[in-house]
Amino acid sequence: MKRNVLIIGAGGVAHVVAHKCAQNNALLGNIHIASRTLAKCQAIIDSIEDKGSMQQPGQLKAHALDAMDVEATKFLIRATRSQIVINVGSPFLNMSVLAACIDTGAAYLDTAIHEDPAKVCETPPWYANYEWKRREACKDARVTAVLGVGFDPGVVNAYARYAVDHCFDQVESIDIIDINAGSHGRYFATNFDPEINFREFTSTVWSWEDNAWKANAMFEHRKEWDLPVVGKSAAYLTGHDELHSMSQTLGVPNIRFWMGFGEHYINVFNVLKNLGLLSEKPVRTARGQEVVPLEVVKAVLPDPASLAPNYTGKTCIGDLIKGTRNGQAREVLLYNVCDHEACYREVGSQAISYTAGVPAVAAAMLIADGTWDIGEMANVEELDPLPFIQLMNGMGLPTRIRDAAGDRLLDPEREVGFSREQRKTASAR
Amino acid sequence: MKRNVLIIGAGGVAHVVAHKCAQNNALLGNIHIASRTLAKCQAIIDSIEDKGSMQQPGQLKAHALDAMDVEATKFLIRATRSQIVINVGSPFLNMSVLAACIDTGAAYLDTAIHEDPAKVCETPPWYANYEWKRREACKDARVTAVLGVGFDPGVVNAYARYAVDHCFDQVESIDIIDINAGSHGRYFATNFDPEINFREFTSTVWSWEDNAWKANAMFEHRKEWDLPVVGKSAAYLTGHDELHSMSQTLGVPNIRFWMGFGEHYINVFNVLKNLGLLSEKPVRTARGQEVVPLEVVKAVLPDPASLAPNYTGKTCIGDLIKGTRNGQAREVLLYNVCDHEACYREVGSQAISYTAGVPAVAAAMLIADGTWDIGEMANVEELDPLPFIQLMNGMGLPTRIRDAAGDRLLDPEREVGFSREQRKTASAR
Repeated sequence: MKRNVLIIGAGGVAHVVAHKCAQNNALLGNIHIASRTLAKCQAIIDSIEDKGSMQQPGQLKAHALDAMDVEATKFLIRATRSQIVINVGSPFLNMSVLAACIDTGAAYLDTAIHEDPAKVCETPPWYANYEWKRREACKDARVTAVLGVGFDPGVVNAYARYAVDHCFDQVESIDIIDINAGSHGRYFATNFDPEINFREFTSTVWSWEDNAWKANAMFEHRKEWDLPVVGKSAAYLTGHDELHSMSQTLGVPNIRFWMGFGEHYINVFNVLKNLGLLSEKPVRTARGQEVVPLEVVKAVLPDPASLAPNYTGKTCIGDLIKGTRNGQAREVLLYNVCDHEACYREVGSQAISYTAGVPAVAAAMLIADGTWDIGEMANVEELDPLPFIQLMNGMGLPTRIRDAAGDRLLDPEREVGFSREQRKTASAR
Repeated sequence: MKRNVLIIGAGGVAHVVAHKCAQNNALLGNIHIASRTLAKCQAIIDSIEDKGSMQQPGQLKAHALDAMDVEATKFLIRATRSQIVINVGSPFLNMSVLAACIDTGAAYLDTAIHEDPAKVCETPPWYANYEWKRREACKDARVTAVLGVGFDPGVVNAYARYAVDHCFDQVESIDIIDINAGSHGRYFATNFDPEINFREFTSTVWSWEDNAWKANAMFEHRKEWDLPVVGKSAAYLTGHDELHSMSQTLGVPNIRFWMGFGEHYINVFNVLKNLGLLSEKPVRTARGQEVVPLEVVKAVLPDPASLAPNYTGKTCIGDLIKGTRNGQAREVLLYNVCDHEACYREVGSQAISYTAGVPAVAAAMLIADGTWDIGEMANVEELDPLPFIQLMNGMGLPTRIRDAAGDRLLDPEREVGFSREQRKTASAR
């Protein structure tokens, strides 16, 4: 049992995380929000108060913190008696915040893989370059660290684990598909930090094919998928965090990630990339100023959080899994559909932030009640997916399953006989 | 009679100007090249020596100069005994260099209108905002200042004057058309300073219609022109320097400027503009750096001078003039066709730099021999076009005429009885 949550970051995902923590503060205890800019933390607190999101009266506090400073972060963890840290700041912070958790014994959660600002799309598997180097340190300190527990990575990893354990004897392929069929009404915007968004696509696209890494180019492979609610949607083979753990943990020979892009997005992306404006390497202007082009592109694009009020439409994200069961070929789609406008009504965010933030809070709750408090580092597919899926069904992120038997809510109790009582005592592995 | 030339700037146009001055140093005397970066001046001198461009042995020297510093510029003008200054540096320098010329008595030439880095596309006529404010000062100091004497502005102004004086009783419209049908083989590049190039198109497009200014939007008006050599070419109504003097000096009711753009250029331009990346106003990055987006775009684009070695194809720039002669409707096209590869063979530049640089040197020669040494400020259409056109015919920029009588070289001697001897004594106005 762990209590009191420190949220690192004050962007769009942190906004959702804070709201959802507030909605569950009977279990989670005090809520602290820390980022470099105190005013951004305070704006989130104001929004929680406006929406009346607190489940019961409790502490909700803003802090100014440079989370690259490990000692300052440790001090804040201790001062706030936080036993759970949800890191939804920049992915450049992961290793610093993780270090602070290891030293203080707090559980660590994040929603995206660590990145070095100076490198893009490094040698796979990416987790081995940073986070996994601290596996032993977590184990020695009995620190629970759940990596990448947003929607993708995160929920899609749990879907894969669920499919491997409960739907198939043998899984042949997992295609993770992420479609945002929403519209923000702006000329161009990214749905999360543009710097991080573009960095995903500016170099080699790694996929896992026949049990080996395959290097592709961005927008090299296009496929049209027919998905529930959002319908036929074009998506492109993309490099993404979850492949770098799932390829190592699940024993599935083919794992691919597909991201939906419209022609307009691709055109803008290609222009910026071909001109060199998505580069993370500094250039020198005629006036002698050293500037990272990507940081300037980020500065001119809309703040993703500003898109929420006018966002319409829905997202569909899920895993299409193929394999065999009892000698028969089988195909299962596990997915969630999320509505931008409903998210905005509930917490003042768009669905991209919402789908990333809610799973992190579900994971925090599973650590708080002991279910996932494993005292070591894990990626999501290494944890029992049943309590996670069941909990999110009641938190605004219901999981649906589409297979030969039809399309329905995935109720772990009905599908595999997993009950709420079992969840309370479920072992993490 | 004036001698010794100081060239300000060391970009693509300065390169051509220096080569052409070298080819005519018997008349022009010593040649000095000054820019902030000494190495760029020296590279031009090396190239002149490689090509053997010097007409006769003479002085050819590089200087480091910040031409925003009027006192430093005056010092250099005096130290080098330069009586002619050809300003082909950034258009932000014009007023400073002009001030240095007024104080030292040196003749002043430039090829583009003055710009304030903080302003784009100001109230027309643009010359009235800056250069024309120094008209009286030039007259008082008996300083010859020829504004905008590149190709466009410059030669196209002379063409207009030629048409008004020698081809029509009444001119109804002048359409200046600038088509670059060449190919540089790069994903995207501008043919001269990207900062200046984009600034031309990022705000209101002014044209002169029915004796009044008309405000249009960029890419609002498209027209296909059928031109010699380059054939059918799409061009768009664009704001441009020469309209801002010709509208005031020629008494022609309609004067428009059309620039040729391919679909690809327009797409890249629109993406950059719509994202705010062509803005001259600073933005603040997440790291707190103040950056002008346009300066970063300039920094990532190819140096226009670097395009020259692989540039193929031709440019066609000219004036299509409509009006009446002896009560009959008449249409005349005055134009030049310039070949990128031929320019590179001759001076190591592409045709865009070449067509801008050669006229400035022709003008310097007309000042040196007294023909255009008028002791006051003028735009090109206020000067006699005949000696200018005749001189350029022998300098690599021949003028052709297409009218009802056919398509032929415009030989002022044959067309209007203007002889070389007359040129020597021609009065400037």
